[in-house]
Amino acid sequence: MKNFRIACLPGDGIGLEVMSAAQDVLQTAAEIHGGVVFDFTNFPWGSDYYVENGLMMPEDGIRQLKEFDTVFLGAVGNPKLVPDHISLWGMLIKIRRELELSLNVRPARVLRGIDSPLHSPNDFNFIVVRENSEGEYSEAGGVIHNGPDEIAVQNGIFTRKATERAIRYAFKLAKKRGSKVTSATKSNGIVHSMPFWDRIFNEVAAEYPDVETRSVHIDALSAFLVTKPETFDVIVASNLFGDILTDLGGAIMGSIGIAPSANLNPEGKYPSMFEPVHGSAPDIAGQGKANPLGQVWTASMMLDHLGLPELGAAILEACEEVTGEGIKTPDIGGTSSTEEVTAAICSALRKKA
Amino acid sequence: MKNFRIACLPGDGIGLEVMSAAQDVLQTAAEIHGGVVFDFTNFPWGSDYYVENGLMMPEDGIRQLKEFDTVFLGAVGNPKLVPDHISLWGMLIKIRRELELSLNVRPARVLRGIDSPLHSPNDFNFIVVRENSEGEYSEAGGVIHNGPDEIAVQNGIFTRKATERAIRYAFKLAKKRGSKVTSATKSNGIVHSMPFWDRIFNEVAAEYPDVETRSVHIDALSAFLVTKPETFDVIVASNLFGDILTDLGGAIMGSIGIAPSANLNPEGKYPSMFEPVHGSAPDIAGQGKANPLGQVWTASMMLDHLGLPELGAAILEACEEVTGEGIKTPDIGGTSSTEEVTAAICSALRKKA
Ligand SMILES: CC(C)[C@H](C(=O)O)[C@@H](O)C(=O)O
Ligand SMILES: CC(C)[C@H](C(=O)O)[C@@H](O)C(=O)O
Repeated sequence: MKNFRIACLPGDGIGLEVMSAAQDVLQTAAEIHGGVVFDFTNFPWGSDYYVENGLMMPEDGIRQLKEFDTVFLGAVGNPKLVPDHISLWGMLIKIRRELELSLNVRPARVLRGIDSPLHSPNDFNFIVVRENSEGEYSEAGGVIHNGPDEIAVQNGIFTRKATERAIRYAFKLAKKRGSKVTSATKSNGIVHSMPFWDRIFNEVAAEYPDVETRSVHIDALSAFLVTKPETFDVIVASNLFGDILTDLGGAIMGSIGIAPSANLNPEGKYPSMFEPVHGSAPDIAGQGKANPLGQVWTASMMLDHLGLPELGAAILEACEEVTGEGIKTPDIGGTSSTEEVTAAICSALRKKA
Repeated sequence: MKNFRIACLPGDGIGLEVMSAAQDVLQTAAEIHGGVVFDFTNFPWGSDYYVENGLMMPEDGIRQLKEFDTVFLGAVGNPKLVPDHISLWGMLIKIRRELELSLNVRPARVLRGIDSPLHSPNDFNFIVVRENSEGEYSEAGGVIHNGPDEIAVQNGIFTRKATERAIRYAFKLAKKRGSKVTSATKSNGIVHSMPFWDRIFNEVAAEYPDVETRSVHIDALSAFLVTKPETFDVIVASNLFGDILTDLGGAIMGSIGIAPSANLNPEGKYPSMFEPVHGSAPDIAGQGKANPLGQVWTASMMLDHLGLPELGAAILEACEEVTGEGIKTPDIGGTSSTEEVTAAICSALRKKA
């Protein structure tokens, strides 16, 4: 019997509902597998915790997480209780940085039975590899002067190490998929970091002469995800550009509530973290309307990472059987609740046993 | 007879074709009006000029442009001849900055007879007000160290003056349209410039208590332009975010080749500049395939600015008559050439005389 220790951080808002859903699905997966145990430890960290303790997570929170095989996160943020930059930098971004989760991998395709808002979604199937540790998301900078003279300076910091790591991962992935790599740039407007990014992209590309490449400015690339998403395979992007492209990916998949992601520590030094692309959606929290698919698909990516790719695939197939039957939450045109969709996924999984 | 002196910069690639198209339409508009003359002066500046002269435009180019009532620009950039950051900072961005064109105003809606790639485009009609003089597009920063230690630092600089100016313009516009204002932010990830932006947005909003407001993170906002574009009226955004949102706007309008823009000098100290959202598209240049609608719609915005709103409206109506009849370039599913579409617009205009 193989035991996996999973640190679960439901977080805020619908994070709690979708976490509970995904845990049910994972337990069902363990049952049908027979040889694995998922040992969940739930941590009540997040905005409510902040209100009580003045911190999003305990001082030694990162140390605690390092004891686990993986971290499974719901969603963080409740701007009514804590300003977003405090809640995110105190938890989600803190975990990404301190566990050195330098890559954020986010696939996008349309699941069976789900309507894309696009006329002809043309069977797109791409993966965004997002640099996850630096770049535009930076605490360097500040505000000077007061009144009419006030000026904010925001420093983006791009190291060769992190840039090259993300780009190299994208090329390895493309080689495995037999696909091409598109680089998101904006070197026509942003004249230091983006030409630097382009230069490293071209260097790494030279090592993979059989992988087709393209650099596209982020404005045009965003538009292409709407007009011709089927032309992309692997897209590599900076932290901010990857953030934008993957929400767009969620939109064309039919709902941001479906999109999954893996925050990887590529060296395996610390546990990797798995969280859906969507946020905590405080406006619909507690109403049973949250789409569990993003968190469940994320669970499937976590199983791939844990060396259980067949079990991961079974979960995703079960999801598609359920959506294919029209059992869906309201955000994707259905009338089912979070619990109903979850129960249907579990029963589809059991039928595979 | 009122004479308008217009500096025309066709630029590169399809810029030449769409400029010539829009000049034809403007001359036709002058004919039917009877009381105005458009006096075009063409400047051959751009990437070819760079190859000959080592500069995108002459040293005293900006001084020359200041003599005109408006500047009308096609598209700049030909990466085969000049790296993008050199061509753009040597011409388009240089003109924006040195003529103090601090606002970039870009409307988005679907013209009659044009298919949006969205299933149910739901009659959206919004305007993006983009800060056009600073922010993420910045020459501040650089690269230090070599080899594995290389680091690029990119400074974004946000002044209260420019930020407030863009936001205030958005509120005035919203008040005129009786609409609401959405602010594009990313203060959860970008912790100096974006909280600063939010703070100024909230301050200005307090002066307009009857204008409804919303702040949305750029990732979610990009997704919403795909899933519910009809919920937006006026969107105010930083330089980079406005760039991304308006290419997305072009995408959901059916083609980036349709979207117009006005680069405004709000004080009227220098001429304003009018250019379509699309680029120079070197891949299709010279083939008669370029969509002239973006440049022609831009001409219509220029006429509004010159105090000829009825003539501007007549041009846009003529465009919709033509697209409504299915006379369209290939990018929007038609089979007509640039010249055919242009001739049809001119003849639709003449019928209005
Ligand atoms: C919540 C926010 C800080 C986060 C990000 O921008 O990284 C989210 O949008 C994401 O994509 O994971
Ligand atoms: C060509 C480029 C520098 C420019 C910009 O980013 O401003 C263009 O994309 C635009 O939107 O006008």
